[in-house]
Amino acid sequence: MSSELETYKPILERIRWDQNGLVPVIAQDAVSGTVLMFAWMNHEALAKTIELKRAVYFSRSRKKLWFKGEESGHVQHVKSLRMDCDQDVLLLQVEQVGGIACHTGRNSCFFEAYDWQAHTWFVDAPVLKNPDDIYDTK
Amino acid sequence: MSSELETYKPILERIRWDQNGLVPVIAQDAVSGTVLMFAWMNHEALAKTIELKRAVYFSRSRKKLWFKGEESGHVQHVKSLRMDCDQDVLLLQVEQVGGIACHTGRNSCFFEAYDWQAHTWFVDAPVLKNPDDIYDTK
Repeated sequence: MSSELETYKPILERIRWDQNGLVPVIAQDAVSGTVLMFAWMNHEALAKTIELKRAVYFSRSRKKLWFKGEESGHVQHVKSLRMDCDQDVLLLQVEQVGGIACHTGRNSCFFEAYDWQAHTWFVDAPVLKNPDDIYDTK
Repeated sequence: MSSELETYKPILERIRWDQNGLVPVIAQDAVSGTVLMFAWMNHEALAKTIELKRAVYFSRSRKKLWFKGEESGHVQHVKSLRMDCDQDVLLLQVEQVGGIACHTGRNSCFFEAYDWQAHTWFVDAPVLKNPDDIYDTK
C-alpha cells in the first residue's frame, strides 16, 4: 500500500466502494454550480485527488489513473469534496481551468438536452475551443 | 413493450445503457444548482419520468420502479433532462417539492464534507424535517 493510501485510510474506509472497487464521482463547478462531468475513482485516484487537491479519476476504459487535464491543461482544482448519505457517491466542487471540462471543447459534458415537444435530443451548449487545439493529435 | 416505451424508443435508443440496462442519473435543483442526489434509471423509469415530468428512478436494492416522493410527498418536478457526451449519464434538473431530496430530511444527500485539515468527514447541512415525520413508520 502506498503512503497516500495509508494516510487517507480512515477517509477511504467510510466509502462504500462497488464490487469493482470504484465509486461514482460528480464534478460540479464550485462557482456557477454547473454539473461538469461524471467519472469514477478507485482508492488510489481518491487518495491522489486529496493529496494534490486536483481531480484524479480512474479510467474504466484504459484501466488506469486519469490525471484530469494532464494533456489539455484543463485541470480541476478541488474546492470541496462531498459524500452522499449512502456513502457510495462523491461530489467534487472544482475550479475548472480554462472553463472546459468536456473533451468536445465545451464547458460541461451535459450539452445535450431533451426537447419535450419534438421528443428529440438537441445540443444547446457552444464549443468553446476546437478539440484539435486541445489535444495534440499528431 | 408498453406504449410509453414505444413512444420514447428513439430517445431511449440514444442512451448507452450499462450491462444491467441501467443509466446513472444526477438530480440537481433547477434553481439553486445544488446537486440533490444520485440514482439509476432503467428504460421504463426514464419513459415514466418523461411521461409524468416527475422523477421516477429504478431502485437497485428493491429491483423495482421508485416513484420519487410517492410516500414522502417530496416529488421532483422535472424542468430539464440532459445527457452527457458519452450518452451514458443523465442529468435531471428538478423542482424539489418540500426542499427535501434526502431520506434523512435534508435538502441534499451530499451533506458530508471532507475536512482538509482534520482529514475527517463532517456533516454540514441541517435536518429540515424529522425522517419520522416524513415516512409513515407505523
